[in-house]
Amino acid sequence: MDLERVIKRINSKNVRTVGLQFPEGLKTQAIKIAKKIENETEATVIISGDPCFGACDVSDSKMKGFIDLIVHYGHTPLPLKYEVPTVFVEAFANIDVKKTLKKSMDLLKDYSKIALVTTTQHLHLLDEIKDYLEDNGKEIVLGSSKSTRKGQVLGCNFSSIKKLDAELYLFIGSGSFHPLGVYLFTKKPVLAIDPYNGESREISDFADKILRIRFARIVKAKEAKKWGIIVSSKEGQYRMNLAKDIKKLLEDSKMEAYIILLENINPDALLPYMDLDSFVVTACPRIAIDDSQMYKKPLITPQELEIVLNKREWKDYQLDEILFHERYD
Amino acid sequence: MDLERVIKRINSKNVRTVGLQFPEGLKTQAIKIAKKIENETEATVIISGDPCFGACDVSDSKMKGFIDLIVHYGHTPLPLKYEVPTVFVEAFANIDVKKTLKKSMDLLKDYSKIALVTTTQHLHLLDEIKDYLEDNGKEIVLGSSKSTRKGQVLGCNFSSIKKLDAELYLFIGSGSFHPLGVYLFTKKPVLAIDPYNGESREISDFADKILRIRFARIVKAKEAKKWGIIVSSKEGQYRMNLAKDIKKLLEDSKMEAYIILLENINPDALLPYMDLDSFVVTACPRIAIDDSQMYKKPLITPQELEIVLNKREWKDYQLDEILFHERYD
Repeated sequence: MDLERVIKRINSKNVRTVGLQFPEGLKTQAIKIAKKIENETEATVIISGDPCFGACDVSDSKMKGFIDLIVHYGHTPLPLKYEVPTVFVEAFANIDVKKTLKKSMDLLKDYSKIALVTTTQHLHLLDEIKDYLEDNGKEIVLGSSKSTRKGQVLGCNFSSIKKLDAELYLFIGSGSFHPLGVYLFTKKPVLAIDPYNGESREISDFADKILRIRFARIVKAKEAKKWGIIVSSKEGQYRMNLAKDIKKLLEDSKMEAYIILLENINPDALLPYMDLDSFVVTACPRIAIDDSQMYKKPLITPQELEIVLNKREWKDYQLDEILFHERYD
Repeated sequence: MDLERVIKRINSKNVRTVGLQFPEGLKTQAIKIAKKIENETEATVIISGDPCFGACDVSDSKMKGFIDLIVHYGHTPLPLKYEVPTVFVEAFANIDVKKTLKKSMDLLKDYSKIALVTTTQHLHLLDEIKDYLEDNGKEIVLGSSKSTRKGQVLGCNFSSIKKLDAELYLFIGSGSFHPLGVYLFTKKPVLAIDPYNGESREISDFADKILRIRFARIVKAKEAKKWGIIVSSKEGQYRMNLAKDIKKLLEDSKMEAYIILLENINPDALLPYMDLDSFVVTACPRIAIDDSQMYKKPLITPQELEIVLNKREWKDYQLDEILFHERYD
């Protein structure tokens, strides 16, 4: 992580109080980095300890008024208006992807035009991977969008890969959510390479499994009469207008609907609302999908609600995305 | 709960969006109350689902900009500047205290001048209890302060009872924290009557037990070289200036100290900071005492830190309190 650049910025701008924010996996680095900054600058460091899962979640509104600069680690900036000057420091996973890539070449043999897709922490590997694949006779395409870097997707935004002309999407990274999204938005083959465990797998079987779970949730949600609509107060996840539209839609369909504002969404936070039969999540689109098994009541996305209300067909199933101008509608 | 008054206010002020906030024990009432308000007014209700433990914790900064009125249940207002017009609705526990009181009269026989003390949800019982005790020949005193009602104490503020002239303090309510505070701040006998389970007990044994635990924490904290100083971003718990003073104090004593800003303090939130040996909590004073057993590292109050640093004697042990002007120092 580019700490020297941060220290230079603090010293050159006469920053007196600096806020540090880390995603969950990097919080263990917080004290070490705070110490170095306080040793090499005149600034006092305040570490944000709240849960943080993305650049949708910058601690700017909480730190406004007493922090001159926020240093946000591990995510690329989103097109949001941050209330405090914020430096985004990418945290790159230090791994050797080439070995896994070599092993996977056989799976790519039938494809000549390949789109590369990854998440923030592996963006720095893309050039190397692109070179390697081109040396092996592949044509490589990379997408971009105003919310992401070249080749990058977010759990809540797949704009970059939607209009690419490619025969196969090669996803580099861990977890299944991002390649699932690439598959659902492109309907093309997606090969996911996990550089941590060296595994590569075609994602369609996993996608089928997830779609079966989603179908079951939608069937269950069709029985619901009383709904909760969850809005997150996190800057980049806040979609109150969408929530109000959904409330109206449900009420027009003769159902009850109540808007619940939460900073962090988790099963305990929903326990008090036992009166409600089902929830629509307008916050992070991953919650309803990734955490599905943790909740007793169905949690569904706004797009899934359209299927429940017969306003969208199952064959047009799609993941939820956050368009970052919605916050300011 | 005085819902008719709330509905009247919403209708008379032309409120379009109303925020509802409940402490944990009342959140199960949220949907019922939201429904009634939406049926009897033109307003849209937004329920705040975040954890809420006091009037230190009003959701005003999160609801600012899209809410015309907050209805905050279960707490009395604090002398804070709330950013959105807020109505405080007290939630009274509907219980019969007289029976338990009668059973306890024998324990009061040696005392003629008694101070009554309670928490928000039993304030409405005080008149009845006062009458009963006066009818039985006791002289009753009630304290007040600018942070509390007559006879009321908060977990973070015992101003109301400090300068009373009484031989015994009679606490009405559940839990041990409040009577512990009354005992430590007055050094007088405290009888705690729990109207829920009908028990009454003299609090000094419990206080001794807690003090032994605090002494052990302080001894352990004396070994610490690297400290975390916890600040809550909750409006009424935010004491950044105190945290910065503590940081300076620790650094002047040749130790390391790092400020961590958190909205909700819990063991998981502190797990990433394994490098640190001990924590000073400037947030809610109950956390270090009530939740002590949940944390592996010592969590201590600012007053306990003074003992650690030999700036206060053990015999002058005192609970932490929040003085509500500190927020604006």
